[in-house]
Parts: sequence; structure tokens; C-alpha cells
Amino acid sequence: MSRKDKYHELVKNALIQEGWIITHDPYAFDTIPQLSTDLGAERTIAAERAGEKIAVEVKSFLNVSQVVDLERAIGQYELYRHLLKRQETERKLYLAVPSYAFEGVFKTPVGQLAMEEFGLKIIVFDILGGTLVWKTP
Amino acid sequence: MSRKDKYHELVKNALIQEGWIITHDPYAFDTIPQLSTDLGAERTIAAERAGEKIAVEVKSFLNVSQVVDLERAIGQYELYRHLLKRQETERKLYLAVPSYAFEGVFKTPVGQLAMEEFGLKIIVFDILGGTLVWKTP
Repeated sequence: MSRKDKYHELVKNALIQEGWIITHDPYAFDTIPQLSTDLGAERTIAAERAGEKIAVEVKSFLNVSQVVDLERAIGQYELYRHLLKRQETERKLYLAVPSYAFEGVFKTPVGQLAMEEFGLKIIVFDILGGTLVWKTP
Repeated sequence: MSRKDKYHELVKNALIQEGWIITHDPYAFDTIPQLSTDLGAERTIAAERAGEKIAVEVKSFLNVSQVVDLERAIGQYELYRHLLKRQETERKLYLAVPSYAFEGVFKTPVGQLAMEEFGLKIIVFDILGGTLVWKTP
């Protein structure tokens, strides 16, 4: 199993442990052409808890450059957010990022700007403990 | 010379032919960490004509998937646009894309949504003729 797939399973299991019900894996955006979910890229997970609906993009930040990964993550987040607005207004989009990326690129000025300007909703997961350690309220 | 570098030179020369003066190559965003311009990624060009200032991100769309390239391009565009807003409010950001991408992914529903929702400013260049064929007014 690739590290990307491991992270995907880790976040899914951690969501279940926190009481979320996984409703779609992968969650598909209704558009043409199909998004990069086709291409061995990260798949989006949809989950529900007490009437709250979320879609979660699990990002692995395994590239040599976390800035490149951040740019790519922003592009997907912004695109998916707009698609979701048309498809299921009430579902909130989260970016699940490993704690090493949250402590890395997200703490730099570029990461801070990205979080502020795009209002990124973040779930931080711990790859060792297999748990969710933080979630934007 | 890589195709990426060829496209960069092509767009630069085509801008000069259209009366633009190249003021920076690469144009650097004032932030930490330095953006992917460090990493052999596309460099941003800055140009000026009759008091109009632009920054141009040349994209090659050479990946197997143009959707992946589009997602990445959106992420960079949005991030750079916010950085530019803080750094040089009057400079407009353009995405220079080869005509095959403009006729490809940009004509699909995802491409159209991206252009509408993000208000992308586009310069289309012809890789055979070496000319600019269109620019968002």
C-alpha cells in the first residue's frame, strides 16, 4: 500500500473513531472532465455526524517541496469548494494534512497567508498515532 | 532547452513583439519560503506597457492530465494574486497558456468554471507561430 493510500485509510479510520459515518469513498464531484481522483491522486472522503456533512481531501505532502504541495492543495481546495457550492451547499470542505506539513509549510508566512486568504478548513492528522489531532472549528 | 524553458522564451519574445517591456525575469514574490520558482518550475515574468503593469505565469500544460495542470495553475494563480495584492496592487496577474490547453481543458465545464469563479486573466500563446493569439481584455 502506497503512503498516499495509508494516509487515506488512516484519516478514514480516525474519522470513524471520532464518531463520523463515512458516506462516500471516493466522493465524486459532478463535473466534466472527472477530476484528478481518476489519476491515482488523493480521493475525497465524505462523512456525516449529527447532521453535519463534510468532504475531506487527504493530502500527503510527500513532494520534495511542501510549497509545491501547498500550491496544488490550494488549487484543488478552491476548485472543489466551488463545485461543492453548486452540488451540495451544506457540505463543508476540509483539507486533511499530516502534522509534519502543518508544523512545516503551514506555519510559514505563505502557509499563514493561504489559511487566512482562502479560509482553509484544516484537519491535522498524526501519522504515528493514527489519530486526528486538530480540526478547524 | 526544455519545453518549459522554450515556452517561457516564446511568451517573453511575443510580449516584446507586442510592445511590452520586460522589467523582471524572474519576477520574485516577497515571501517566505520562496515559491516554486526555485524549483525549476515556471518563472513569472513582469512587463510594462504604456503604464500598464502585468505579471505573467507561463504554464506549459505538459502533464498527462490537463486537469491536474489546471488545479496546480489555479493554486498558483490564487496564491500569487493575493501576494501581488499586498506587494504591488496595480500589477495584474496573467496566466499564459498554450493554445492546445486553451482549446482543451479550458473549454470543458471545469475549465469554464475556473475562468468564471476565479476571474482568471489569460494570455493564449501559439507554440508553432510563436505569437500571442489572445489576451483577456
